[in-house]
Amino acid sequence: MRYLMTFSYDGSKYNGYQKQPKASTIQETIEAAMYKINSNNPVGITASGRTDSKVHAVNQKAHFDMEKEFDCWKLRHAINSILPSDIFIKNIEKVDEKFHARFDVTGKQYIYKINIGEYDPILKDYIYQYNRPIDIEKMKEAIKLFEGTHDFTTFTKANDETDNYIRTINATDISVNENIVTLVFIGTGFLRYMVRNIVGALLEINEGVLEVQDIPRLFKLKDRSAAGITANPEGLYLNDVYY
Amino acid sequence: MRYLMTFSYDGSKYNGYQKQPKASTIQETIEAAMYKINSNNPVGITASGRTDSKVHAVNQKAHFDMEKEFDCWKLRHAINSILPSDIFIKNIEKVDEKFHARFDVTGKQYIYKINIGEYDPILKDYIYQYNRPIDIEKMKEAIKLFEGTHDFTTFTKANDETDNYIRTINATDISVNENIVTLVFIGTGFLRYMVRNIVGALLEINEGVLEVQDIPRLFKLKDRSAAGITANPEGLYLNDVYY
Repeated sequence: MRYLMTFSYDGSKYNGYQKQPKASTIQETIEAAMYKINSNNPVGITASGRTDSKVHAVNQKAHFDMEKEFDCWKLRHAINSILPSDIFIKNIEKVDEKFHARFDVTGKQYIYKINIGEYDPILKDYIYQYNRPIDIEKMKEAIKLFEGTHDFTTFTKANDETDNYIRTINATDISVNENIVTLVFIGTGFLRYMVRNIVGALLEINEGVLEVQDIPRLFKLKDRSAAGITANPEGLYLNDVYY
Repeated sequence: MRYLMTFSYDGSKYNGYQKQPKASTIQETIEAAMYKINSNNPVGITASGRTDSKVHAVNQKAHFDMEKEFDCWKLRHAINSILPSDIFIKNIEKVDEKFHARFDVTGKQYIYKINIGEYDPILKDYIYQYNRPIDIEKMKEAIKLFEGTHDFTTFTKANDETDNYIRTINATDISVNENIVTLVFIGTGFLRYMVRNIVGALLEINEGVLEVQDIPRLFKLKDRSAAGITANPEGLYLNDVYY
């Protein structure tokens, strides 16, 4: 029986989603809880994709197989009762045996939060502390240039193991509410560090290090070293995964 | 030379504001930073009042004396460079030698945040996870009954060392924004646990354990055991101190 779970997590105390030796990860923590639920038999979970260290998820998705047929509501409750308070299973549903949480993704939504007001020690792990003003009109103009289908080599992790750097961003949005700027990116797929590198470029445009009209040129260069900074992980949220 | 500092902190990893043996506190952490600034001579800080374990402050105030006259901006920067990232000095100003950060308080503003939507593992230390719907109209009616001058014995910590339980709440407010209910309390002074006990009573009114019309009776009883729960600390913020 194949199940699909939707879950949320505070990434600030984890070394990212993906299991790795000698580091605390989201995947390992959930699999440890499921091992107990499954009478001490391992259950591997396959997520829509990884999130990096300190990045949060509002609606991450993963599938897993269990021989026994569980009541989804009870299974969710059982796992949550074992998980630490910074990871929460929001939903579990039964899916077709052929469903795959990574290969079947049709799109994802990421959110990036920036504090343009004074440094906030309370939400420092949840909102990037930029602490400088932002020219919203300029940012709105710049973010539009990332929409559409592009080769995102300049805006991914340098030397990432990928054979295709072409991705499509379907929609973007910027809104401001009491010194918090929220950027939204909806796309068919995202490369490693892609959102954080786009945000880094937007902040450099804000500061005049880059100009809005540099973006098309940077796409053409296909060279990560041509663009600037990678924005901090704590402002980033995997907000939704679409199938 | 007497100085007044305004500071903000994330209370989630501290055992409250006030210094105590064998526990990490906000006061001790700031005084340790100032000890270094003051050439390894102790500097005691006197705050507007304590905040309890896990309670946050957006604008806490404290005065301190230093023999040397410092440039306030440079002093602030020096202290912040030593403090951990979850405490932040927002401002330092010179004040009259007779100014007292606790005795001269004329009022305080507290905020309490409640999540009435689904459990949120990301903001669990910053918003109380009530995770149940709230009857806002009923709450608006109930919170008004706490305004004015009352004997708050029923709504303070049982057996607190105080000789006067009379306090005045000048204004209250309730607002809702995307499943987050924000309660505001502005008053001339607050007893220990007073805001959390009022919020606890409001939540019991929401659940039908108490009725709105029970509040005047509870005030008259002057008995902490007559009212209900103390709301969790993580939803509470000392938002402002007035002089």
